[in-house]
Amino acid sequence: MNIDFSFQNPTRIHFGRTAMQHLPEELANFGSNVLLMYGKQSIKKSGLYDEVMNLLHQAGKRVCELPGIKSNPAYRQVLQGAQLVREHNVDLILAVGGGSVIDCAKAISVSAYCEGDPWQRYWINGEKVSNPVVPVASILTMTGTASEMNAGSVITNEELKVKQGRVFPLELVAPKFSILNPEFTYTVPKYQMVSGIFDIFSHLMEQYFSGEDDCVSDYLLEGDMLALISAARAALKNPQDYEARSNIMWCATMALNKILALSKTQDWEVHQIEHQLGAYTDCAHGIGLAIVSVPYYRHIYRYGLHRFVRFAKNIWHVPTQGRSDEQVALEGIACLSSFIAELGIPQTLREVGATEEMLPLIAESCNKCGGYHVPDTAEVLEILKACY
Amino acid sequence: MNIDFSFQNPTRIHFGRTAMQHLPEELANFGSNVLLMYGKQSIKKSGLYDEVMNLLHQAGKRVCELPGIKSNPAYRQVLQGAQLVREHNVDLILAVGGGSVIDCAKAISVSAYCEGDPWQRYWINGEKVSNPVVPVASILTMTGTASEMNAGSVITNEELKVKQGRVFPLELVAPKFSILNPEFTYTVPKYQMVSGIFDIFSHLMEQYFSGEDDCVSDYLLEGDMLALISAARAALKNPQDYEARSNIMWCATMALNKILALSKTQDWEVHQIEHQLGAYTDCAHGIGLAIVSVPYYRHIYRYGLHRFVRFAKNIWHVPTQGRSDEQVALEGIACLSSFIAELGIPQTLREVGATEEMLPLIAESCNKCGGYHVPDTAEVLEILKACY
Repeated sequence: MNIDFSFQNPTRIHFGRTAMQHLPEELANFGSNVLLMYGKQSIKKSGLYDEVMNLLHQAGKRVCELPGIKSNPAYRQVLQGAQLVREHNVDLILAVGGGSVIDCAKAISVSAYCEGDPWQRYWINGEKVSNPVVPVASILTMTGTASEMNAGSVITNEELKVKQGRVFPLELVAPKFSILNPEFTYTVPKYQMVSGIFDIFSHLMEQYFSGEDDCVSDYLLEGDMLALISAARAALKNPQDYEARSNIMWCATMALNKILALSKTQDWEVHQIEHQLGAYTDCAHGIGLAIVSVPYYRHIYRYGLHRFVRFAKNIWHVPTQGRSDEQVALEGIACLSSFIAELGIPQTLREVGATEEMLPLIAESCNKCGGYHVPDTAEVLEILKACY
Repeated sequence: MNIDFSFQNPTRIHFGRTAMQHLPEELANFGSNVLLMYGKQSIKKSGLYDEVMNLLHQAGKRVCELPGIKSNPAYRQVLQGAQLVREHNVDLILAVGGGSVIDCAKAISVSAYCEGDPWQRYWINGEKVSNPVVPVASILTMTGTASEMNAGSVITNEELKVKQGRVFPLELVAPKFSILNPEFTYTVPKYQMVSGIFDIFSHLMEQYFSGEDDCVSDYLLEGDMLALISAARAALKNPQDYEARSNIMWCATMALNKILALSKTQDWEVHQIEHQLGAYTDCAHGIGLAIVSVPYYRHIYRYGLHRFVRFAKNIWHVPTQGRSDEQVALEGIACLSSFIAELGIPQTLREVGATEEMLPLIAESCNKCGGYHVPDTAEVLEILKACY
């Protein structure tokens, strides 16, 4: 744990089949005006909308609504929500949905009372938030982003074709409480489920593939990866397997609530590339990550060979006897590729609607960072071509 | 994650060589009157006492002191501290030391304004705390108990010869902030260092050896065990190895800040036996745990065979080919025993001052719980005799 850190995560988690029972006691901590946000119609079909609305009314809340949050939440929706918050003097923003809805709720929470253009100030300039922030809470229906227990907010500016993430301080923006009932995820279509699973796996790899020291966080990241692989396989066999779905849900939260990232430098370049892929194609986030990951790691493994050998041994149980480190590392990446295939995820960009013309635009526009190596535009283009 | 849970951990951690720089900003959140608690003279020798006292005075605090907290903190010291809190109208109890000092600080925090006898109400009856609680914070100098990020408080009633733990709600009693500088642990004598290391390992095993499901927490517990074994070996070679000592410190905090225990039934019988061993012999906590663990697990493994096989494979890499589950499980426990020997920890109760007459008294007086099996008094006596 060579890198100093300060850490506190303020989110209270209620997890399990009975989690919703805690909503009334949590609502009692906030004022009367609630902005209820959600995505498409699925929470109306499942009955969750009615259940939440009843509990809100029983708690004496006045509710305004912002439905239709997109899976890549749009900046124009943030501005809509910010206006609702001001008009209705909102005391609590309650996001019911997956990471997109919660990310959008956080964006609204910091934008509502921001002077000037929040996009420019908070997502582009990365300015410190000094205006009042409206509390956010969440009821999770789709797992993957860990937005339920962190302060990240990824927003797409459709006009500018830029998808940009910002990590705010946890104490300001992380949900005050989050309700996680794994049964709510049963109705998520398989494509979205595996997208979420790979999003989680990618979060773990982005944190893992960096650093030279023998860091506790790396062992914990490995533990979460192994738990996720096991749960994913069980959920593929039976999507109604509570144990599997609950494990996936908790793997997701732990993967990005920051506690496994402590004292770690990190990578996050796969996410940067995918953000621009998403801005151009609107493809599901986890699917885009899966497609880009294999050629990305094949490109950078030689810069952090020891870590890719460790990944192969500890995660995929690749035998090492009589093999070079290079061979072991590459077999580890091949195992990752097989796992993606096992999840039934497409392996090429053209399958998610990318065109050849988009590739240089994505390569040019994505942020460049990295763990063991920071690729330049030409390298990103090469990576994109390798999975086109 | 089959068992529902609610979770929030309020402690803010400042970790690393520069952690102390955060003390002034933290002190600013509390009133003027501080009770400073510590153990023996070591923080005066190391200069830490002067450093903390200077920062307290610079922050304009009025300081009263409670030195001499014992390694098994005594209930009479809790009452002394409670009186100081009332007399000086204390706003913050600052514990500088290891788990004993912090446990004692928490006990004082709930006892100061308790009507009636706190020992009876909170440690024996387990009553809910409804009186005002004084905030606690810590500066950690010895690692093991995770008291710096949890709400446990183990107190010894010397008069009654009972050592009793109580886990209070995190939001009430967990330190508001804790400062963890691994360098502060360099001066801990080797015997105390290995005692702390085994205490951590025992916390992980107490949580791990229970349950039948494929639970994320188990994978994370395994990760923390593997990190600890690696760091312990490095610290034995070179106690001034910052990487090793910082890993041990963070393994300890993670091992018992509750986040790896979520959705787990747990065991904790080894701790129950050791508490009574400690009440009779005053032996170092981790040393007592190590002595009792091996015969305890040899006694109970057959009730949770699958988990002991998993422990052998995932933690000690015991080969399984051509062996029965029974053989694999027992070899895992043998590896645990070798690890204890590697740490240089005594293997018998008589080496820590127990007499044969004490054994039935310890067996009789210890609480009986368990993960895969709850032993009765006769079984505990058998376990004690096996390591006498």
